[in-house]
Amino acid sequence: MRKSYLLTPGPTPLPPQVCEALGRPIIHHRTPQFQAILKEANEGLRYVFQTKNDVFILASSGTGAMEAAVANLLSAGDTAITIQGGKFGERWTEICNSYGINTEIIEVQWGEAVEAREIEKRIKANPKIKAVFTTLCETSTGVVNDIEAVGKIVRNSQAVLVVDAISGLGAIDLQTDSWFCDVVVSGSQKGLMLPPGLGFISVSPKAWKLVQDSKCPKYYFDLKAAKKALDKTDTPFTPAITLIIALCESLKMLKEDGLENVFLRHKKMADATKAAMKAMGLELFAASAASDVVTAAKVPQGIDGEKMVKTMRDTYGVTIAGGQGEFKSRIFRIAHMGYIEKSDIIFCLACLEKVLSQMGYKINLGAGVKAAEEIFNSHT
Amino acid sequence: MRKSYLLTPGPTPLPPQVCEALGRPIIHHRTPQFQAILKEANEGLRYVFQTKNDVFILASSGTGAMEAAVANLLSAGDTAITIQGGKFGERWTEICNSYGINTEIIEVQWGEAVEAREIEKRIKANPKIKAVFTTLCETSTGVVNDIEAVGKIVRNSQAVLVVDAISGLGAIDLQTDSWFCDVVVSGSQKGLMLPPGLGFISVSPKAWKLVQDSKCPKYYFDLKAAKKALDKTDTPFTPAITLIIALCESLKMLKEDGLENVFLRHKKMADATKAAMKAMGLELFAASAASDVVTAAKVPQGIDGEKMVKTMRDTYGVTIAGGQGEFKSRIFRIAHMGYIEKSDIIFCLACLEKVLSQMGYKINLGAGVKAAEEIFNSHT
Repeated sequence: MRKSYLLTPGPTPLPPQVCEALGRPIIHHRTPQFQAILKEANEGLRYVFQTKNDVFILASSGTGAMEAAVANLLSAGDTAITIQGGKFGERWTEICNSYGINTEIIEVQWGEAVEAREIEKRIKANPKIKAVFTTLCETSTGVVNDIEAVGKIVRNSQAVLVVDAISGLGAIDLQTDSWFCDVVVSGSQKGLMLPPGLGFISVSPKAWKLVQDSKCPKYYFDLKAAKKALDKTDTPFTPAITLIIALCESLKMLKEDGLENVFLRHKKMADATKAAMKAMGLELFAASAASDVVTAAKVPQGIDGEKMVKTMRDTYGVTIAGGQGEFKSRIFRIAHMGYIEKSDIIFCLACLEKVLSQMGYKINLGAGVKAAEEIFNSHT
Repeated sequence: MRKSYLLTPGPTPLPPQVCEALGRPIIHHRTPQFQAILKEANEGLRYVFQTKNDVFILASSGTGAMEAAVANLLSAGDTAITIQGGKFGERWTEICNSYGINTEIIEVQWGEAVEAREIEKRIKANPKIKAVFTTLCETSTGVVNDIEAVGKIVRNSQAVLVVDAISGLGAIDLQTDSWFCDVVVSGSQKGLMLPPGLGFISVSPKAWKLVQDSKCPKYYFDLKAAKKALDKTDTPFTPAITLIIALCESLKMLKEDGLENVFLRHKKMADATKAAMKAMGLELFAASAASDVVTAAKVPQGIDGEKMVKTMRDTYGVTIAGGQGEFKSRIFRIAHMGYIEKSDIIFCLACLEKVLSQMGYKINLGAGVKAAEEIFNSHT
């Protein structure tokens, strides 16, 4: 009878409407019926991406969409800026290196955001830079980067701005067009409340010029083929039909709530979680630039972080995430992204208090929950 | 109240067990619970592939797995044989060309199988050939190629044998190890009775040697990364969790029936469909090498093939496939692959008879159904 709670930064819980859509009998993709669905999905994605650009749906995880960005924009020997302040920023460097693209790496301490001025300096110093690869929310640290500020710099340069919004899209604000984001990539299993298996990528007119010149080999992720198909409301290869049908359901939910309200809900959950951490005497990991989709906190001294996460999951059914890379057992992460609301947060915090207390951490049981409730009950 | 019948060569209908699994709440992929599922899926895939090699699960459609084969085995400037006797054979050439790989193209008339002797001649004439790209069932024509015969030739050469078994795996016999297939790729939406969104690829020891030397750029489809992860019962990137959970259900069904019985069921459906075509006075398209998974027949003179397919779908709820490429309106294809049995075939044939008759084709209503029933009732 025990219920399960999933507060991880991907996958996130599925709404019942999405589960229902996933379980429907399948339909063929080359039918007017599926064409209507594809059209609806594309329109909904443009709403969530806040863009007039085409948004392509790939049958891949988010990393596939990241590779699509690199392979379609650049050629071997080109130079791009990557920003390493966590595991997913490092992924941009790795993909670029796989394709023989030179990377000017901006190193950022894990837990901190990139300085837009640093990007400006690099772009001015090296006019050969063709692309700036950024991360909206660095899931591994909980940090959100100021993409709006970066966009203001990159728009006036020869380079295109590429944003990994896998973590964050549909949960925190990302104004693709107004912020001059040339390419935005995302995935299905985060703010969009779906299982993993879909990648998304939007392409601006400035980016299309690079696509025309790109010489990196590609076939499955070839955006020119995707564009040709999309113009006929089709896909170049068999699409992930059930996931796209379910996508229409989650897009409908986001549209009904309205993006602004969705962002406010996430902000409130983040504020409540942060307040609870402080009330429990825990130190936030990304204090200066904490995102509204995942809160990272330091594991208190003397507590086994991995055991704590495991006990919450195996004994109480509450799955949160540990750290990644060198922070594996030193931080833990509570995601509040997608189909998550107040009740999930409160129960997760109550469980965290209990487990920490059982493990010997001195805590006033209820202190974290109380602090969170105060935020949820406030009108700001 | 009208029921829908899907007799297309991908996607194929989903068993209720699969639909149910797809609709379950999601679980996190970095848990012991999902690890057990991944292990079960990998074991089941080795049973269906009839191999001791590792079978990797990709979050992509079958084409992604095809690209993985090319990008992991070869380097720009290498030479490979491709066989063009249909749309999917041509896809191998296209992918190779995207990666700067030279192709020795064996042209085969659409509707016919490749001659193993032709491959032998080419391999002997050019010792630089590193890979032979073949197609088990050429879905666009309904032809099945004699992979066993090709394997006997390629095994004694320096080249590796790569088989596109997207259409056919889990429905017709393909003995990966006994037939010396070095790399076999497949997809989820055909014989495996799942929605599209998973690609599969098996790799033999002979093929791994090429993987070590390959210089094609790749990241998402990098098999060395996939192998490193698989050895820890993990995936390098977020897997398509729900599809893999559903895969365990369909693999269980295939195992319970036993591959041999599954193949017999498909053979009987193919024989019945072919007998019906003849009884209806229709000419089979791939007469000499027709597969057991899809039957292609010529549209009779004076009949609008596209309208026929459309009427069956829109008026009677029976979806079959038209032709592809230059045969778009000249042939039609009835798939009997995956979760399809006698009742589906009989109803499809009855519907086909009715629509053809309404369109002015002279036919004894019931003749096709009778011929099919005779096959289904026979004990051979």
